Amino acid sequence: MRIYQAHIIDTPTPSSFRIFENGYVAVDDDGIVVDVWHELPLELVHRTADPSSDVRLIQLGDRLLIPAFCDMHVHAPQYRNLGLALDEELLVWLNRYTFPEEARFSSPEYAEHIYRRFVHELWMQGTMHSSVFATIHPQATDLLCRLFAEAGLSALVGLVGMDRNAPDNLLNSARDLQDYYQTHHRASSQSVFPILTPRFIPSCSPEMMRTYGQLVASYGLPVQSHLSENRSEIDWVRQLEPESVCYADAYRRYGVLGQTPTLMAHCCYSEGKELEMLRDNHVTVAHCPTSNSNLASGIAPVRTFLNEGIPVVLGTDVSAGHYMSMLRVIQYAIQVSKLHYARTEGQLPYLSLSEAFYLATKAGGQYFMQAALSEKGTGSFEAGNTFDALVIDDSYLNYDHYTLEHRLQRYIYIGDDRDIRIRFARGNQLPEPIL
Amino acid sequence: MRIYQAHIIDTPTPSSFRIFENGYVAVDDDGIVVDVWHELPLELVHRTADPSSDVRLIQLGDRLLIPAFCDMHVHAPQYRNLGLALDEELLVWLNRYTFPEEARFSSPEYAEHIYRRFVHELWMQGTMHSSVFATIHPQATDLLCRLFAEAGLSALVGLVGMDRNAPDNLLNSARDLQDYYQTHHRASSQSVFPILTPRFIPSCSPEMMRTYGQLVASYGLPVQSHLSENRSEIDWVRQLEPESVCYADAYRRYGVLGQTPTLMAHCCYSEGKELEMLRDNHVTVAHCPTSNSNLASGIAPVRTFLNEGIPVVLGTDVSAGHYMSMLRVIQYAIQVSKLHYARTEGQLPYLSLSEAFYLATKAGGQYFMQAALSEKGTGSFEAGNTFDALVIDDSYLNYDHYTLEHRLQRYIYIGDDRDIRIRFARGNQLPEPIL
Repeated sequence: MRIYQAHIIDTPTPSSFRIFENGYVAVDDDGIVVDVWHELPLELVHRTADPSSDVRLIQLGDRLLIPAFCDMHVHAPQYRNLGLALDEELLVWLNRYTFPEEARFSSPEYAEHIYRRFVHELWMQGTMHSSVFATIHPQATDLLCRLFAEAGLSALVGLVGMDRNAPDNLLNSARDLQDYYQTHHRASSQSVFPILTPRFIPSCSPEMMRTYGQLVASYGLPVQSHLSENRSEIDWVRQLEPESVCYADAYRRYGVLGQTPTLMAHCCYSEGKELEMLRDNHVTVAHCPTSNSNLASGIAPVRTFLNEGIPVVLGTDVSAGHYMSMLRVIQYAIQVSKLHYARTEGQLPYLSLSEAFYLATKAGGQYFMQAALSEKGTGSFEAGNTFDALVIDDSYLNYDHYTLEHRLQRYIYIGDDRDIRIRFARGNQLPEPIL
Repeated sequence: MRIYQAHIIDTPTPSSFRIFENGYVAVDDDGIVVDVWHELPLELVHRTADPSSDVRLIQLGDRLLIPAFCDMHVHAPQYRNLGLALDEELLVWLNRYTFPEEARFSSPEYAEHIYRRFVHELWMQGTMHSSVFATIHPQATDLLCRLFAEAGLSALVGLVGMDRNAPDNLLNSARDLQDYYQTHHRASSQSVFPILTPRFIPSCSPEMMRTYGQLVASYGLPVQSHLSENRSEIDWVRQLEPESVCYADAYRRYGVLGQTPTLMAHCCYSEGKELEMLRDNHVTVAHCPTSNSNLASGIAPVRTFLNEGIPVVLGTDVSAGHYMSMLRVIQYAIQVSKLHYARTEGQLPYLSLSEAFYLATKAGGQYFMQAALSEKGTGSFEAGNTFDALVIDDSYLNYDHYTLEHRLQRYIYIGDDRDIRIRFARGNQLPEPIL
């Protein structure tokens, strides 16, 4: 067992930060949090002082120890396009930049070139868990899973399904999906898990959607997709699926909405019947405020989701979102919430910093662990969770008499990857992945 | 004369980037741009090859050379509070965090501690021109001017005037302002200039505002202040100045709106009569989107201002804005513009990247140079402008076959201060200021 001493901060509940100034967290040999304390229990004081004991005390000094981040919606093959073409309309962006880029992943060499950088940057930004869209290419997707495993990062990885409304070189078939999941319905390593990933209704024919419903039923796999991102997309789905009462209902009717842990990105315009359907089917919303701003999609009604008891997690949505850093997504989540507040003249309170931090850590971890069929949690330092943590050296930000809560605020708002000194995943200190 | 070879990019007009791949820019010994070329003129080729010539060619390699940034609204004494307390409502933020912090600048030692960091960070972020609110303290403000001059950075620096609605230790008087400007109405150095800085109408009694009107008339100094940031502030001004037809009219009636170059921050709710008044009085709007999001103020109608011919510049508004980087402000300006676009269902086009870059460079420079009574421009590499430039090494971002325009997009969206290799101000390469 190892015991780390540092300024430990997390959010077991969204309403406030829990702060242990010069506190202690004990982690067992399996990488599981034993407990966290303000003062080390006397028995452990004795054991850490005993050289023959298996308990080691590691003093991290005047540093912050926080949970690692969870990026719950990200497109790995779009990594090269970070920051590109954000002036373009959605369809130009998709057809001229995104689809041609994804098509390049038919080459395993190219996939390795980009996916190595993608996994490296997740590591760099302190994102130890993510839910990832790959492409239609099984070989490249297998490679991505291998790179995650080698880096020691946890991921839900989805081979994308799409059989219409995209260039021919980006289409697969219901049969391709059946073949793939016959051999890919179990975890590919200790930390990498499959997730069913229909791109979205406009990309998937009824036949493909029925196949997804069968795959859910056969293998019990979780599902991720896109929902109600912008108005023209919603109109399009209404034409494609006229028998559905709303966009979410199209997924529901094919049996891929809530039968297993289901993660829907965006939901900018989910209200009324759709809101009830998300709630009643225990769907988790992946809120991607950076992307929703960049693509002029709008502002998702996150406070309404939370009030309804709909779980919300955060995602970068790279490359429609231009930052790999979850710190930035936390900021954007709060800021768009405040702009929504300003527009509605304060009808519902905006997200607080601790709430947004909770969404990026513990809430993301809750979805991840359900989807991975794990009994452990992550994203906070509660006993029984896996120890996924970041050691933050904010000394250059801490040149005056700041409180610990203010130090954390400053790190979240103005810090960056330079400040992360150590990254722990499942108890292990992760070295920098090879680029 | 020196000639720099690099990939030169600027925005002489907002509509697009002007790109010189492996281009040349010549700078004379006074730091003024002579010209910029795709190919070096033959005569200059000969002169650069002649060791006895005074023309030196400096090859900057595969790097981007762009105009340095202009931060046209920033509160220097709030630098310590970057990232703090952004969950709080405006009045709590002001009374519990901002005012107590500003009061500390009665101590020149404390002022030096913080102002050195502030100036250092402007340098670090590549902001060579800024328009700055100091505090009510003449000694600390003189010190700030000196630090700017020592660093070689250009600034408009305003002693703040406020004689009501603030703690006693943050009030000065009309008489204090008269005394100060009697000795401070001229540039304090080659690059540092005074600007009249009434905090805003609620902080300034009619007597103080009349004094500002006299100072404008006596010394011809430019003016900066705040205008129509949020709804409750506008209601407050309506009560304080019932004879004014709008908030801007309160400034106008005291003779501090457009008699000299006038810079008004925020203008989130300037419409109708106020919009006309800004236009007719040639007021420049300092748009601060980061701050307007953080304080839940709302979204300023920037496209409407531009369509009306009202000049718009960008500001960080530190510490209500939490970033000192103008790259981030460019991003936010575009993003809030897109959210406005989504909300109004696309009635007016959102800001493009080249437009936002123009606002952060040439437009800011235009206001600065008017206010400094300079005949030169800055913010683009047009002949006759001062050479204020950044050399960007984006090699870690440029791992694939990116075009130059895409390289610039990626730098703006995902780069940061690490990428700036050289900073030029008025032709001189600026060393890092002493912290």
